[in-house]
Amino acid sequence: MERTIDSKLVDVKQDILSMGNHAEVALKIAIEGLLKQDVQGLKSVHENEISINDLQVKIDESCMMILAKEGPVAKDLRMILSIIKMNTDIERMGDQCVNIAYLTKDIIQRGHSFNAGDIEKMSTVVRQMVKLSLESFVNLNNSLAESVLKMDDEVDHFKNSIIAHQIQNIKKNAANAETFLDLVLIARNLERIGDHATNIAEDVIFATSGKDIRHGS
Amino acid sequence: MERTIDSKLVDVKQDILSMGNHAEVALKIAIEGLLKQDVQGLKSVHENEISINDLQVKIDESCMMILAKEGPVAKDLRMILSIIKMNTDIERMGDQCVNIAYLTKDIIQRGHSFNAGDIEKMSTVVRQMVKLSLESFVNLNNSLAESVLKMDDEVDHFKNSIIAHQIQNIKKNAANAETFLDLVLIARNLERIGDHATNIAEDVIFATSGKDIRHGS
Repeated sequence: MERTIDSKLVDVKQDILSMGNHAEVALKIAIEGLLKQDVQGLKSVHENEISINDLQVKIDESCMMILAKEGPVAKDLRMILSIIKMNTDIERMGDQCVNIAYLTKDIIQRGHSFNAGDIEKMSTVVRQMVKLSLESFVNLNNSLAESVLKMDDEVDHFKNSIIAHQIQNIKKNAANAETFLDLVLIARNLERIGDHATNIAEDVIFATSGKDIRHGS
Repeated sequence: MERTIDSKLVDVKQDILSMGNHAEVALKIAIEGLLKQDVQGLKSVHENEISINDLQVKIDESCMMILAKEGPVAKDLRMILSIIKMNTDIERMGDQCVNIAYLTKDIIQRGHSFNAGDIEKMSTVVRQMVKLSLESFVNLNNSLAESVLKMDDEVDHFKNSIIAHQIQNIKKNAANAETFLDLVLIARNLERIGDHATNIAEDVIFATSGKDIRHGS
């Protein structure tokens, strides 16, 4: 018997969720690697990224098959379009985690002493955004999606505090400027992961309500 | 008479092209604003970004209508999926140009003297990548798309040279560290625009050949 579009959508959603979990784990490991200065631990950031990339290709193929064979309309079509976009956002989260891992390796290899400032706090908020955006997707929960959008200010606050802190460090100890600069770049990577979670939350709101809330429209 | 899918695709492609042109112009203006230290000139970066955002929403709606009403398959379906992704990439190029404009305003307001190093050269290569990726899309030209992928190394080279140059500046003159740091961030924004052009080139290769070349697969 031909499977219905519903059961095919369940499978794709499961893959998106699994991809999102890999991104969450990669983020956790990358930041732990920085805070504990543990190069070995960073290896599994790359392993998680490979799983993310494989899932991205699989999900795109599944979406294309559903579009070609099921000809979805209305809510199902919006859901597929949202999944196609989410897929890209989660893949780029993986890229950002790999960037953090590379910067962390450089930092550890230089051996300069440093204080990561609010990076741990910022990463906790960003990880929460990733988690909630995925939960809002699985449960098609608009209010959860809206709570993700509200966390953006907090991320912004931590990013600014990290930049200010590292600029102070640069002025006090310019010889180690590379390390302080890398910490700023890590804060920017975290910010970007938060942006991707925001995109996912916006996609969830579009998939469930048909409302396109990007660009304040 | 009902219009065919071909003529609808022509319209969407035209919108993508127009959106891409706005991104190219925004990039040009943002970098000119930096090099000429011209805050007034930066205003039209924001105007171009508004046009980009409007087109993004319009293109997504058009793609959804085509999917719902035409039920495209094979090459047409791949084309629509590529356009949906490209649409996101061009919109994010616009965001990066706005970031460059904000950083430039900060730099000009501080009034520190600076040397932008290879930023002009880097931006020329990145603009060329944007231009060629769009041309490869319009003409469905795979070899043009491949030439975009090859320009990535050049962008990387300039980014590394800019970072090294600004770290030297920081070490020589840590009191002005904010400005040198902002120049590094602008180089990262340019790199990101190049990444988006690469994504578009990969989408073109997928749309025309069905080959998914992301992640070296």
